[in-house]
Amino acid sequence: MAATPASGRLSAHEIHDEPFYRPVGDEIDIFAAAYASRLPVMLKGPTGCGKTRFVEHMAWRLKRPLITVAAHEDLTAADLAGRFLLAPEGTVWHDGPLTMAVREGAICYLDEIVEARQDTTVVIHPLTDARRALPLEKKGELVQAHPDFQLTISYNPGYQSAVKDLKESTKQRFVAIEFDYPEAGIEAEIVAREAGVSVDLAGTLVDVGLRSRNLRGHGLAEGASTRMLIHAAVLARGGASLEAAVRSAILLPITDERDVRDALGAAIAAGLPAAARPR
Amino acid sequence: MAATPASGRLSAHEIHDEPFYRPVGDEIDIFAAAYASRLPVMLKGPTGCGKTRFVEHMAWRLKRPLITVAAHEDLTAADLAGRFLLAPEGTVWHDGPLTMAVREGAICYLDEIVEARQDTTVVIHPLTDARRALPLEKKGELVQAHPDFQLTISYNPGYQSAVKDLKESTKQRFVAIEFDYPEAGIEAEIVAREAGVSVDLAGTLVDVGLRSRNLRGHGLAEGASTRMLIHAAVLARGGASLEAAVRSAILLPITDERDVRDALGAAIAAGLPAAARPR
Amino acid sequence: MAATPASGRLSAHEIHDEPFYRPVGDEIDIFAAAYASRLPVMLKGPTGCGKTRFVEHMAWRLKRPLITVAAHEDLTAADLAGRFLLAPEGTVWHDGPLTMAVREGAICYLDEIVEARQDTTVVIHPLTDARRALPLEKKGELVQAHPDFQLTISYNPGYQSAVKDLKESTKQRFVAIEFDYPEAGIEAEIVAREAGVSVDLAGTLVDVGLRSRNLRGHGLAEGASTRMLIHAAVLARGGASLEAAVRSAILLPITDERDVRDALGAAIAAGLPAAARPR
Amino acid sequence: MAATPASGRLSAHEIHDEPFYRPVGDEIDIFAAAYASRLPVMLKGPTGCGKTRFVEHMAWRLKRPLITVAAHEDLTAADLAGRFLLAPEGTVWHDGPLTMAVREGAICYLDEIVEARQDTTVVIHPLTDARRALPLEKKGELVQAHPDFQLTISYNPGYQSAVKDLKESTKQRFVAIEFDYPEAGIEAEIVAREAGVSVDLAGTLVDVGLRSRNLRGHGLAEGASTRMLIHAAVLARGGASLEAAVRSAILLPITDERDVRDALGAAIAAGLPAAARPR
Amino acid sequence: MAATPASGRLSAHEIHDEPFYRPVGDEIDIFAAAYASRLPVMLKGPTGCGKTRFVEHMAWRLKRPLITVAAHEDLTAADLAGRFLLAPEGTVWHDGPLTMAVREGAICYLDEIVEARQDTTVVIHPLTDARRALPLEKKGELVQAHPDFQLTISYNPGYQSAVKDLKESTKQRFVAIEFDYPEAGIEAEIVAREAGVSVDLAGTLVDVGLRSRNLRGHGLAEGASTRMLIHAAVLARGGASLEAAVRSAILLPITDERDVRDALGAAIAAGLPAAARPR
Amino acid sequence: MAATPASGRLSAHEIHDEPFYRPVGDEIDIFAAAYASRLPVMLKGPTGCGKTRFVEHMAWRLKRPLITVAAHEDLTAADLAGRFLLAPEGTVWHDGPLTMAVREGAICYLDEIVEARQDTTVVIHPLTDARRALPLEKKGELVQAHPDFQLTISYNPGYQSAVKDLKESTKQRFVAIEFDYPEAGIEAEIVAREAGVSVDLAGTLVDVGLRSRNLRGHGLAEGASTRMLIHAAVLARGGASLEAAVRSAILLPITDERDVRDALGAAIAAGLPAAARPR
Repeated sequence: MAATPASGRLSAHEIHDEPFYRPVGDEIDIFAAAYASRLPVMLKGPTGCGKTRFVEHMAWRLKRPLITVAAHEDLTAADLAGRFLLAPEGTVWHDGPLTMAVREGAICYLDEIVEARQDTTVVIHPLTDARRALPLEKKGELVQAHPDFQLTISYNPGYQSAVKDLKESTKQRFVAIEFDYPEAGIEAEIVAREAGVSVDLAGTLVDVGLRSRNLRGHGLAEGASTRMLIHAAVLARGGASLEAAVRSAILLPITDERDVRDALGAAIAAGLPAAARPR
Repeated sequence: MAATPASGRLSAHEIHDEPFYRPVGDEIDIFAAAYASRLPVMLKGPTGCGKTRFVEHMAWRLKRPLITVAAHEDLTAADLAGRFLLAPEGTVWHDGPLTMAVREGAICYLDEIVEARQDTTVVIHPLTDARRALPLEKKGELVQAHPDFQLTISYNPGYQSAVKDLKESTKQRFVAIEFDYPEAGIEAEIVAREAGVSVDLAGTLVDVGLRSRNLRGHGLAEGASTRMLIHAAVLARGGASLEAAVRSAILLPITDERDVRDALGAAIAAGLPAAARPR
Repeated sequence: MAATPASGRLSAHEIHDEPFYRPVGDEIDIFAAAYASRLPVMLKGPTGCGKTRFVEHMAWRLKRPLITVAAHEDLTAADLAGRFLLAPEGTVWHDGPLTMAVREGAICYLDEIVEARQDTTVVIHPLTDARRALPLEKKGELVQAHPDFQLTISYNPGYQSAVKDLKESTKQRFVAIEFDYPEAGIEAEIVAREAGVSVDLAGTLVDVGLRSRNLRGHGLAEGASTRMLIHAAVLARGGASLEAAVRSAILLPITDERDVRDALGAAIAAGLPAAARPR
Repeated sequence: MAATPASGRLSAHEIHDEPFYRPVGDEIDIFAAAYASRLPVMLKGPTGCGKTRFVEHMAWRLKRPLITVAAHEDLTAADLAGRFLLAPEGTVWHDGPLTMAVREGAICYLDEIVEARQDTTVVIHPLTDARRALPLEKKGELVQAHPDFQLTISYNPGYQSAVKDLKESTKQRFVAIEFDYPEAGIEAEIVAREAGVSVDLAGTLVDVGLRSRNLRGHGLAEGASTRMLIHAAVLARGGASLEAAVRSAILLPITDERDVRDALGAAIAAGLPAAARPR
Repeated sequence: MAATPASGRLSAHEIHDEPFYRPVGDEIDIFAAAYASRLPVMLKGPTGCGKTRFVEHMAWRLKRPLITVAAHEDLTAADLAGRFLLAPEGTVWHDGPLTMAVREGAICYLDEIVEARQDTTVVIHPLTDARRALPLEKKGELVQAHPDFQLTISYNPGYQSAVKDLKESTKQRFVAIEFDYPEAGIEAEIVAREAGVSVDLAGTLVDVGLRSRNLRGHGLAEGASTRMLIHAAVLARGGASLEAAVRSAILLPITDERDVRDALGAAIAAGLPAAARPR
Repeated sequence: MAATPASGRLSAHEIHDEPFYRPVGDEIDIFAAAYASRLPVMLKGPTGCGKTRFVEHMAWRLKRPLITVAAHEDLTAADLAGRFLLAPEGTVWHDGPLTMAVREGAICYLDEIVEARQDTTVVIHPLTDARRALPLEKKGELVQAHPDFQLTISYNPGYQSAVKDLKESTKQRFVAIEFDYPEAGIEAEIVAREAGVSVDLAGTLVDVGLRSRNLRGHGLAEGASTRMLIHAAVLARGGASLEAAVRSAILLPITDERDVRDALGAAIAAGLPAAARPR
């Protein structure tokens, strides 16, 4: 199946410059194999470990426009599929982002799908099996998917609760790729490149990240993400002391509990250069 | 009762090519007998075992258009029956998918009916007894069903909870056909045909499926569906190793629990050719 | 009070052919006495025992059009009373089914009233006492009921729960008639007539029904209704084996519990002709 | 304050014929004294004991139109106050029933006020103190009440629950009059007059009513109301046997519990003439 | 800051005649001091003790128009701020009562603020600090408050529950004045003046009020308010016996519990002149 | 990145006069470093300690317009992003406050973000990472942020509950700055300047504040905020006695519990000049 060029309507969603992505396993090959047969893909993993960046990279690599929708509790099926709006000549149909992707052959990325209401997750079912169709019930139209259309979702297993989980009948429709924070050397490389700091400083911050991740389950819901390490590096590059950068980008956002914060602060300080330890 | 040709409005819903379906019992005869008297039918069974494919096959066999609606929590009676939309000359009625099927004699398939709100399930009551009529209360019209109209619903008993179950007065209106995953030889045949792989590879994957289904109730809500086996076969055909294909298409989507995944992974590995076992 | 002919708007709701109804007690006389004084009537009884058919029969007998509304959780007062719709000359009022019945003298039948929201049940109060009026608050009109108008509701006491019950102040407004499954000989007569099968086959199925009703409270919420027996007879007439007909029309719809189904299956098999017992 | 004649808009709400009402205490004087100073009145008492009839009688006696609104869970402040509707020249305001009564000097009767949502009960506050004004917030208008306007509400204390009760700040705004079923002689007089039966038959039915009220708290939420006794009398007058009339008008509507119904049936039968006892 | 004359739009909200208010402490000075700096004020106290009358009096004294909004559960931010309505030339913005007060310099009184939804309480935040601005988000306008605008709210601490309480961040924005029922002599003076009865009769009723307030916590949520005493006086002036007046205006509205009512009745009777004791 | 001048549409949001802000640590530097890289910032701290004033000061310092939105439970994504409104030529899109800030390069301040619904917090995600884009799903537009746009939120950790907390995936996107009440000398300086009173009086009130904060956790949810101290000072300046000023501005608003208020009153009185102690 050759990929046809993206239409004008999607040009804002084309990705022209290669998004930096540092692969850590066979994730690129698996995604490519799934895309070749247009199987839907689920990216599993914790917050801020690079899932969004990965799908941007794959869209660039596969030369497909990317339409991203952040799911949330109030996202309705109509927000995805489209709705009638009032125009001088009466009500006029406007495609939603999913319909646009389906019609014109984009990759549609539904971020944090589990946050959405049931109608949102069910509306994608007929797009994820042999039918590859999107019924616009309000419009009475059955949109057959463009040959290049593919659906990708993200999912953070750490967040699931009894009340909010993907239905079995939804999960089983997806091929899954697992993500985690990268191995230390790779993570330092990423932090250095994204924040524009030395690999040395980046390495110090990755060490801070590892220490925080060791406290997961001991008062911390999650450790510091790669994103937080990059924030700290950016603040340091902008003139903040390493101690202030770590405090503002990691310690303060990660927890409201003073005890936990003190424990984490101590653990971190032990690993910082003496000059950067909090006074 | 001779089936009249489907009208133009339904042509997108006609099925011209025989959908592959491998019968496993008397399900085709029962459905045909029910359709002959236009009795409503309920397809019961687990996720991904072929219920949707079966109703497509029957629609093709009976030469009736098929209108499928995926039920969900937010599906309203109006989504099924229709609504008034604003046009230059005032509000104009637009038939919903159920009304279209009722008027023009299609088979209407309500997938996962139990997800729908009560108003959706009650709106079908007068269509499922001697009345065979759909009252469009908002429009003040009583639509008498086309002689060819028939209603089919699907229902996964494994999903029912205290809060969500079909009412007795709804269940009793349907003739039921039970589905389960097919016997191993038949399932291998299906996987091979659907994914375009050798019966040999398909048989290996069916063995994986059986091992996973044995863990049902031991941490797994459901075993791997036929659909998941097909996904694994597709990834393998696309170049992924058998181990990676099983991981991405079965192990990762089926559970978030690391313990369960390890147990399942071990059980599966024992049945894979030595070369395909995870490193 | 002489019944005036039904207006054109109601002609779709007139019943020209006598609906088959086999009386079992004094229910016809009680309904007629209530209708003579236009007292509202409540039909109490289990699912599928003939309440809807009875009210159709009475409407035919009294030569009044019948407007049936299936109540459900999302049925609003506006669905019954009417609403403003947008037309070129502004908003135009459209009578709902209840208002139509009130204005033009039909019998209005609210099926499974207890499913409706409170506003629906309260809107009928002024129609059920000396006022016999329907206030259309949104329209600012007080519709005085046509002399022939009467209100009938149905109510399944087996369904009531703590959260959903008719208010005392509603119940006390109705004269009640109790229904149950008919005595065996009468039920066989009904099954034979409705499904077009021999009284012999019908009798066998009625025996199946009685066995299932004995299991009520032992895992079964309700026994097989008369409707289910008719379905089984229809499938048998259409060529299905008696065993397959009973399985599809009774065993599978009535319960999802394998234990209960096995017990019921055994109880039923004991009563079937040897040839029809499941293999 | 002299009562001015009701305007044309209210003519459908004028009461020309004296509604039959048999006083049982000083209720007419209290209401008249409250109306003289336009104090708001609350009628407290059980279902079907004549509260609605009383307010109709008082409106006739005071020569004021009566606008009745049955409160329910979904009654919004807008249903009472009014709303904008779309007309060719844009949105046009339509007074709700309360606003109409306020502007033109009717008695407004809010039946079962406790069923309403909080916004409904709060909207009446400024009408029940020295302000005597209704702010139409959506319209930006402050409607000063017509000198003849008065507000009456009904309230059944037996119904109140923890979640649904009038707020103290609402209750304290009303002068209250208590109602109960009338004393036996008076009740027989009422039943005889309303149903057109002999005082003798009426007395028998009143005796049935008293027996049922003695079971209050022993399985019965409420005893038979005067209204139910009238229904039984009407059925008997229409030809039903006394036993059938009592069964349909009292026994069946009053409870779904077979035990309670049997106990009540026995208690009632003991008081019926031998010929009327159930077979 | 000199008060500018109220614009035409607010003329219905100007108070021309002095509302009777009998001060009981420094409340007039505190309010005046707060108004001088336009600090927002919270009036705390039980039902019917004169908070509304006080704010009317202050508005008259300060010569500012008064816009009162009774808060309730369904009051939305749009009800306060305003909304777009459809007119021939498209949607037109209509100021809500709060916006009107903000623009034109009225005192806005939000009665029983704690009943309102969170959005209502939050919308007033920027009006209660140095910003003194109301952002009309739907209109994209930031309304700077007129120099004379001031916000007053009322709050009954006895009503607060776990689910409904003012947020700390809201409470801290207000200067508070506490109210309670006035001392006996003053209360008699108020009752006499408001109901037009002798101070003697008023004193007897104030004594009834005190006895009821002593039962607070012993079955009574609140004692009789000054308002209820005035109601009783009005009924007595209108010809009702003192006993009937107390029963209708105090005993019946204050409680539904027969025990409590009997205890209260006895306590009250002990204090009434012998002739007025219930028979 | 040079800051471009704010467009006309935002001129009402420009801050021309330096808002008084007394720094207490490195908060100005951290905010400036974050703004330099356009990192999103979260201001953490208790009620009324100066977070809003700080962001106003920073907007003035950075010469950027400031758009403030107070979050609340009913704030929808559409309230932030914008919506279609009806105009003569059909529906027309109106940017919400967030979209306006994104398009034209303002600082957008979401106050008390945790109050908002999930959709509001999720809608900001793509603005807080490398994408810096706001998808207007209803309009089908992807707004790329102006180079000067920055997002700041406030968050009071003391308010978080199990049901309302920021998601980890939201928190991790922000650099945080912690606020608390300022040290006594600084706080007196602030109170004196804001209320226009002597540093002496301000110092007395700061001492009152400290005493109240010591009772935090002993019946008080929070101590007196700096804002409350300023209110007391304003009342005193306006002529109220110090005792009345403290009562109205601090004691009454801070708690409804008489015990707690007495304890606090005693603690405060001990620190007031003898002449100002309550009588």
